[in-house]
This record gives sequence, C-alpha cells and structure tokens, in this order.
Amino acid sequence: MTTDNFETKLEKAVKQVENGLKAHLASDDETPETLLEAMRYASLDGGKRLRPFLVNETASLFKAEQQLVTEAAIAIECIHCYSLIHDDLPSMDNDELRRGRPTLWKHSDEATAILAGDSLQTLAFEILSNAPTPTNSYIKSQLINGLAKAVGKTGMVGGQIRDMAAEKSSEVNFADILMIHSQKTGALISFAAEAGAIIGGADHHAREAIKLFGQKLGLAFQLKDDLLDVEGTTNDLGKTAGKDQASGKATLVSILGHEKAVTFLSNLKDGALYALEPFGEKAETLREATRFVCERQN
Amino acid sequence: MTTDNFETKLEKAVKQVENGLKAHLASDDETPETLLEAMRYASLDGGKRLRPFLVNETASLFKAEQQLVTEAAIAIECIHCYSLIHDDLPSMDNDELRRGRPTLWKHSDEATAILAGDSLQTLAFEILSNAPTPTNSYIKSQLINGLAKAVGKTGMVGGQIRDMAAEKSSEVNFADILMIHSQKTGALISFAAEAGAIIGGADHHAREAIKLFGQKLGLAFQLKDDLLDVEGTTNDLGKTAGKDQASGKATLVSILGHEKAVTFLSNLKDGALYALEPFGEKAETLREATRFVCERQN
Repeated sequence: MTTDNFETKLEKAVKQVENGLKAHLASDDETPETLLEAMRYASLDGGKRLRPFLVNETASLFKAEQQLVTEAAIAIECIHCYSLIHDDLPSMDNDELRRGRPTLWKHSDEATAILAGDSLQTLAFEILSNAPTPTNSYIKSQLINGLAKAVGKTGMVGGQIRDMAAEKSSEVNFADILMIHSQKTGALISFAAEAGAIIGGADHHAREAIKLFGQKLGLAFQLKDDLLDVEGTTNDLGKTAGKDQASGKATLVSILGHEKAVTFLSNLKDGALYALEPFGEKAETLREATRFVCERQN
Repeated sequence: MTTDNFETKLEKAVKQVENGLKAHLASDDETPETLLEAMRYASLDGGKRLRPFLVNETASLFKAEQQLVTEAAIAIECIHCYSLIHDDLPSMDNDELRRGRPTLWKHSDEATAILAGDSLQTLAFEILSNAPTPTNSYIKSQLINGLAKAVGKTGMVGGQIRDMAAEKSSEVNFADILMIHSQKTGALISFAAEAGAIIGGADHHAREAIKLFGQKLGLAFQLKDDLLDVEGTTNDLGKTAGKDQASGKATLVSILGHEKAVTFLSNLKDGALYALEPFGEKAETLREATRFVCERQN
C-alpha cells in the first residue's frame, strides 16, 4: 500500500503545483505575454515536483493550514524553476536540453530566459506574501525569511558560485563538494521539508528532526543525480548524460569512486529514515519518498 | 535652507545605505567571497540612493518605526542594484560602463554578474523578513508583497521585457512608452515612496496621495534620464551618452520632440508637487527632491 500511497501523493503535488502555477501565470493586462509564455514554458508540464511534495508531507505531520501549505509548495517550485533556467544559461552550464526539451534560452533567447528566471524568483516571494493579515503574517514572514536564506548568497546561489569555482580548480576535495551540494541543491530541498514544519507550528525538537531529514535527503538527491549521470543514458534522463565525466568535473562519485558513493548514498538514506523515527506511522509516505529519491532511475 | 536640507538628507540616505549594505555583505563562513565581492562592487560606493531617500522622507510624514524604515530603504536599493547588473548584461543592454566604472559582467564575468544580481534580489526579501515577530510581521508582509509586485512580472521585469520588444519594433507609440516607463523604472520609485507610508501606517487617502506622488516622480525621473541622454556627455553621466539616439531607440523625447518633452516634464513635476499638498510643510524636502529629479544635470 505504501508505494501506491507515495505515488498518489506525488501525483497530487504535481496537480497542485500545475494548477497553482497556471493560475499565477494566467494572462492579465499588466504582464507582457512574452514573459508569461517564457515563465510557463519553464515551469509547467515538467519536473517531479519533489519539493512541493515534501512541503505537503511534512505539513501533514502537524496541524497546518492547507492554503499556506499550497502557497509554500508553489513558491518553492517557482524558485526551483528559476534556478534551472539560470543554471542552463550559456555563461553557466550552457545546457541545451532540459526535461527532454530545449532549455528556455535555446527556446526563446538569453535575455528572456534571464528575465523569466528573475520574475519566477520574485513570484515566489509575492505568493508567500499575498493577502497578508495580522493573523497569518508571522508564519508568512518566517517562510519568506527561511526561503531567502536557503536560496540566496548563503544557500543555492552561494553553492552555484562554489560549483563554478570548483570546475576551474584541480584541488577539489570531499569537504568542498559536500559544501557545494549542501548549498546548491540541499538548502532548498531541506527548506521544503522545513516549510511544512514551520506552517504546522512544530516545536523545536520536531523542527530540528525535519531539518536533519531534509539535509540528508537533499544530499542523497544530489548524490543519486551524480550516480545517474555516470550510469544513465540521455534518453532516460531527458538531459545530457555523462556530462560531468566528459567535462572532468569533480563529483562525489569521482572523488569517492563508484562503490563508496553507493555506500554513502545508502548511509544518507538510513540517516534520513532515522530522522523520521519520532513521527511514527504518520511519516510512512516520507519514508517511501526517501527510498524513491535514492533508488530512482532518472 | 530647503536645498541644504535636501542635500543633507540625501547624504544621510547615502551613508545609511552604504553602512547597511556593508553590514549585510560582510564576509562570513557561509558565503563565497567571490560572490560577496561581486555584490559589493555593484552596490557600494555609487548611486544617488534616491529610492532610500524617498523611503526615509515619506516615512517622516507619518509615525514610522525607524528600523523598518532603514530595512526597507536598504532592501529597495538591493533590488535597484540587481536590476542594473542584469540590465547591463551582454544579452540585454550590453553596457560596459556604469557610474564611471566597468559594469559587473565586464569587471568579473557574465555568470558571476547574473548570480550577484540574483542574490541581491534575494537579499532584499531576506532583509525585509529578518527577525520576524508577531508584532512586526504584518507590516513586513505588506512591504514584501508591495515590493514583489513592483519588481516582478507586473512591474520592473515586465517593463524590461516591453522595452526589449519596443527596441525591435518600428511601431512604438506614446502609450507604449508610458507603460514601459511606469513598469521599468516607475514602479520601484513609486513603491519606495509608498513604503514609507506603509511603515507609517498611513490612512487610505494619504497612501493614495503618496502613490500618486511616486508615480509622477518616477516618470519624471525617466523622462529626465532620456532628456539627459540627448543633452548630456558621457563624462557628465558616468555612462555612455547618446546611446538611445545612436540605437534609434524610441523614447518619450524622440516621440514627443524635445520641446514637448520638456513641457511634459514640467507638468509631471507640477503633478508630483500637487500630490504633496495635503502634507504641508512637512513635505518640503520631498518638494526639493522633486525639483532635483527634474533639474539634475546627471
């Protein structure tokens, strides 16, 4: 039953985000249609929606207001989509393929891609601050602050800068790569998990446990990505495979070797599952998600 | 006395923003130094700090908490600096000179410039949401929401997309240009004025008056910029002069002609001053600022 449960709930997150983004990106008199089209191209019909799923599931461990949960899920996905658009740019990863389709800068042009990314970032903060009232603003402000810290200079963007520096360096060690991953991809995944706990008003211990879970899961996600890059084919991934190897880029896999990397992934999985213990049966879907992240084939 | 007063207060905003940004961009263990250096390069030691000044001055018309005023002033300037970095990029305006120095992408590289802009945007929202409490969160959320709407798809970025489309079009009319300016530069200037009213808990009438003032001033600021581009020299401006004419770009000046543009600027100035009438003598510095914006030589 648990696998069905997980897949059903992941499917629910997919629909929730799709509908929410469509509503936020509906045509209006103020927004240029070119911009909306670019934002839609890069955010609709794609992605696993893992982060929104995590918001939903950690929120379900507590007593969380559903509208805030949905808003946080959509906002976090906006940030994820913005980061992919900018990562793919010619001056960054120079990627032409994403989710089996041309990347946004390839599909439209570089300037539009930069601006669509910019406005998806803004949209995340707009969504989290919409319709503020004296009652809901304290939670909204906490979500906004946590999100900003996870995606700015001390989080995702900081990690991207470190990643770019590492690509040019010949002396990248295990600690460097851990730092890159924990900022570049880990921080947002971890915050997605934490967001549910914030909205649910979790106590200190529960919130720390959820953060630990998110950190382990985030790192596991990235490590699995690196393993898939070595093992996978372009067709399976919907993006160019073997890119890290071809570019000689240092990854956890290249530093640890394939066997130790697989063991490390297994340890991270165990660590994530351990962090969920205090939540008993209620966390069963999050356990399934953990297994999915560590065992997926694309 | 009034001019001295204005200059003193503008100088105060310059120092306030400089000190605030330095503190927010101080070195720490989590942020890569390369990123911090890029963010500092593009935000410190430059700019008129007109937007922070407006936050301070409109706040002074009401009873506003000083810490929130300072935070809003700095956050809005972060957004302004991010927008300049991205506007200057090769795929956008391809500008090599800004405030008399190489633009950030010229000084470092394109990827770093994109990411420094990205993280300055995030920093704005981080600053506005820092240290949330049940008491201050309602105002914080209103500021965040207003800022997001002023700078995202319905504001600054929407205007930049329209501006890019207009450059490629041969049929740009007066209404198109007004829309571009009101979104691209007007929205943030207008929000800077409104922010002071939000923090000060202004009533509906006062807030509408301040918004109207901000809209007139924002458009006047852009129109004066266009006039300076025609009249000025590169040395005066600290950026490349005559660029609009050289590129055949449609501006209010090219559409209206120089004489009518000067008259329109004068009307906007009168409109901004009229909107300040309800505030009597307390708004004297804002009147000086209006004259400064409309009469400046760079």
